[in-house]
Amino acid sequence: MGARRIPIIQIVGYKNAGKTTVAKLLIETLKETGFKVGAIKHHGHGGKPDRMEGTDSNSYLEAGAAVSAVQGDREWQYTITDEMPVDLDMMIQMQLALGIDIIVVEGYKHLNYPKIVLLRDERDEELLELSNIQAVGGWNRPHSNKALFTFSIDDFARYKLELLELLISR
Amino acid sequence: MGARRIPIIQIVGYKNAGKTTVAKLLIETLKETGFKVGAIKHHGHGGKPDRMEGTDSNSYLEAGAAVSAVQGDREWQYTITDEMPVDLDMMIQMQLALGIDIIVVEGYKHLNYPKIVLLRDERDEELLELSNIQAVGGWNRPHSNKALFTFSIDDFARYKLELLELLISR
Repeated sequence: MGARRIPIIQIVGYKNAGKTTVAKLLIETLKETGFKVGAIKHHGHGGKPDRMEGTDSNSYLEAGAAVSAVQGDREWQYTITDEMPVDLDMMIQMQLALGIDIIVVEGYKHLNYPKIVLLRDERDEELLELSNIQAVGGWNRPHSNKALFTFSIDDFARYKLELLELLISR
Repeated sequence: MGARRIPIIQIVGYKNAGKTTVAKLLIETLKETGFKVGAIKHHGHGGKPDRMEGTDSNSYLEAGAAVSAVQGDREWQYTITDEMPVDLDMMIQMQLALGIDIIVVEGYKHLNYPKIVLLRDERDEELLELSNIQAVGGWNRPHSNKALFTFSIDDFARYKLELLELLISR
């Protein structure tokens, strides 16, 4: 594989296009390949990640903490409120600083990282105007009008190594 | 207030001594005073922070992500698994890097940050052997055998400014 410049892969598409499914398949594949994988998702507008009611972490936030972290035996749960504005680039830097090798980003379609675009049908093809598209996927293998690598989500195993090679050895 | 050297306050004590209660009261007081407050808790042994089942963040972790972050309108939920070992000092540095002014740490009693010790009764007084104790609290104002500032949790409002002065202007 060639030199990696930016270890980020974005997965974009409209609702129900299979973004989380592809993100999970890609994470599994990258982990099998030996990468330490980070994942980032945009929850979408009008919502926020659910807080776990009744937890101490939540009660710290209600008391006014700007950030709250709870360490268990196996992992940290860390909440960063908007009192400490953290954008996607800052989150990426935070993950890379921990030693993550590659980051799978679901959403944020208007950003410029290398992208997998998922199409539900031909009406979604306007998404092919987005920047930095490396591959196009769909539940049925979409026929894009560009010279792009295309794959079928249903049959991901068949495409995954080729996809990885394409994404990582740019 | 004098120069702050280490903007960390630990709250330690045995189970049911009131640690989370005091942490919350202290966070509220610090926020009122204008600080951006971070909170860190040790969940204790034999457990881990609950993951929220059924969330996309959780499904990324199950797929093998070493870290997973979800951004909502108002906050980030960030999980760091033990594939990326992060200790308390690293978490403190991560919070300070975000711009947090002061961090309230619940637990980790054997570390050496400035401490509030909470005593349930005289049998807990062995905790007074811990390092760097700045204040002693309890549900009833404990009488410690050391020349330490003592306060009653029940009547925290009466002591809070003096306590803050003591903790912050060391």
